[in-house]
Amino acid sequence: MRKYHLLAPGPTPVPAQVLEAMARPLMHHRTPDFEALFEEVREGLSWLYQAPGDVITLAASGSGGMEATVANLMSPGDAALVIEGGKFGERWTEICRAYGMNTEVLSVEWGRSVDLGEVKSRLEKGRHRAVFVQASETSTGAKHDVEGLARAAREVSPETLVAVDAITALGVYDLRPSEWGLDAVVTGSQKAMMLPPGLAFVWLSERAWAAAEKARSPRYYFDLLIERKSQRKSTTAWTPAISLVAGLKVALGMMREEGLENIFERHARLARGVRAAMGALGLEIFPADLMSEAVTAVRVPEGIDGKAIPRKMQNEQGVTIAGGQSGLSGKIFRIGHLGYVDESDMLVAVGGVEATLADLGYSLEKGAGLTAAQEVFGK
Amino acid sequence: MRKYHLLAPGPTPVPAQVLEAMARPLMHHRTPDFEALFEEVREGLSWLYQAPGDVITLAASGSGGMEATVANLMSPGDAALVIEGGKFGERWTEICRAYGMNTEVLSVEWGRSVDLGEVKSRLEKGRHRAVFVQASETSTGAKHDVEGLARAAREVSPETLVAVDAITALGVYDLRPSEWGLDAVVTGSQKAMMLPPGLAFVWLSERAWAAAEKARSPRYYFDLLIERKSQRKSTTAWTPAISLVAGLKVALGMMREEGLENIFERHARLARGVRAAMGALGLEIFPADLMSEAVTAVRVPEGIDGKAIPRKMQNEQGVTIAGGQSGLSGKIFRIGHLGYVDESDMLVAVGGVEATLADLGYSLEKGAGLTAAQEVFGK
Repeated sequence: MRKYHLLAPGPTPVPAQVLEAMARPLMHHRTPDFEALFEEVREGLSWLYQAPGDVITLAASGSGGMEATVANLMSPGDAALVIEGGKFGERWTEICRAYGMNTEVLSVEWGRSVDLGEVKSRLEKGRHRAVFVQASETSTGAKHDVEGLARAAREVSPETLVAVDAITALGVYDLRPSEWGLDAVVTGSQKAMMLPPGLAFVWLSERAWAAAEKARSPRYYFDLLIERKSQRKSTTAWTPAISLVAGLKVALGMMREEGLENIFERHARLARGVRAAMGALGLEIFPADLMSEAVTAVRVPEGIDGKAIPRKMQNEQGVTIAGGQSGLSGKIFRIGHLGYVDESDMLVAVGGVEATLADLGYSLEKGAGLTAAQEVFGK
Repeated sequence: MRKYHLLAPGPTPVPAQVLEAMARPLMHHRTPDFEALFEEVREGLSWLYQAPGDVITLAASGSGGMEATVANLMSPGDAALVIEGGKFGERWTEICRAYGMNTEVLSVEWGRSVDLGEVKSRLEKGRHRAVFVQASETSTGAKHDVEGLARAAREVSPETLVAVDAITALGVYDLRPSEWGLDAVVTGSQKAMMLPPGLAFVWLSERAWAAAEKARSPRYYFDLLIERKSQRKSTTAWTPAISLVAGLKVALGMMREEGLENIFERHARLARGVRAAMGALGLEIFPADLMSEAVTAVRVPEGIDGKAIPRKMQNEQGVTIAGGQSGLSGKIFRIGHLGYVDESDMLVAVGGVEATLADLGYSLEKGAGLTAAQEVFGK
């Protein structure tokens, strides 16, 4: 027997109620039943985004939502500033370049958060149509201060749109697209929203919608204006991922029952517990500045085979965490604590790390991590 | 109590086994378990396509697969010939225009099949990079002879690529991408493949892959070259719609057990039964030339409120069929007979049509349609 414990920074575990909703006989999407369902989902998404206006649902994974953002805000040759401090920062760059933007990269050392003074100085020099950033850079566990960034951008370059990848941020910690003056906020279904992957979501500010009217990048499937028109009529332009939308209704209901404040506090508490545990094991947390409540990235100790850590945990204990990506491969491991996870799940993750590192020859006191986590959770 | 009978030309009913597979705890997609699953799915897709080479899986609905085809084969300004004989023909045109192609439309009266002589004459005049066509035009129930079209294209314009929307064709009737010399064949999960919507599939010929290397249309999420590289390593470039892929494995297994020949014969038999039933009720089948085995489109009789037919069947009997789209709204209704449907389901559809039309004031002999269908099914 081997149970499966999914504790990666996404995809995240799906609650049984959501799985059950997705397992019901499929309904057709051009029916009053689906329209009523979709209307409820739209209302729930607006609640989750803490923002008035349309949250557009796309049948795609989060990268599709990022592409929709670029293609709808920008025209070929437009200047883009990309804050690139990890693998998902690189994704913004790749998309902007694929669409022919004049793409300037502000490189941030992986694991660090962007310096707002540097953002200001870059924006002062160029006439950037938009700046692209991660709220939570899943590949490093670092957050960027998107609230401060939006304020800084407004000061020096008020016309520049602020586009945020909030895929491991929205529904994880307090993020306020409307209040903070963000212009585009993307998320995906397989993180805090407790669903399988296959849905992306994009919210735009009023001025971003106005920019979309003028943007000349080619797009069709990801044309947010076409989608807004349909979705305001309680349907989608193209065939929606019906079963995922049915699951989304249930997941949003669960989130509303828990309440945003409790959800944010739960994620913060789990993060504190995991970090206390890692500290008690003598391990170093990777991000140097702001740490995301979605994921804890931990430096692999000297002399230990870092790539073996997630593989061994997966094979021997059925616990899925994540390794490092690209340049961080073998140098960090990452524990997800977002979505449908609780204190008990964190004990599973910590226990797994203890056992795995000990097996790999790292010297630690077994139970020390678990004890430290318990202390945090008991407060 | 109201049971729900989904008998539209897609989405189609999902077997309980497939729903169950999708309802299992989510697995992470960067694991050996998922890679083994995906490898099995890739092999099954190649079997279903009756074609060697890669069938690329995308997290998108069928329209996303169509867009991927245009964006990967064509560069802005390239000449495209679109066979437009229905709503999905129009979709090719819209996508080609959105991507800046020099788009020539060969209009076909809705319900008719394209004249191959006309295709030849258009292709002789222009240097078309590609011709776009539906194998089965779901909005009218008509088929285009894509085998003949590919042959005709080769005769007069051997360089022109033949791109086929086979969304309600592949797995419905015998379609041979490789043998017929097609260059791009798109399908979606929610038709013959017995899954919810959310996955699109694209197969390209070797020369289409070569064209993709040169095509300059902007693309990222739908970049088939990036995907091919990943999918050959048993994973996807972007996060896959994991639960749908898990369902796909089961659905492909069911299809292989039934066998392609039996699947095609079942769809043809159901089509014959439904058409015999409609004839026995004095109704006229809409397509004038080749009829698709996926769907039967029926003319609304004189004096009957056509829009009321699907609405009434839905509300009063829980039977979902489809009405007409765009210019055919109120003029036809469409019964789907593809995917996870059998003779009994067709009796449900025919019985529903009898009851509904009688209620709406159409004079018919109740049971005549059912009897005619039974006779076909009994042979």
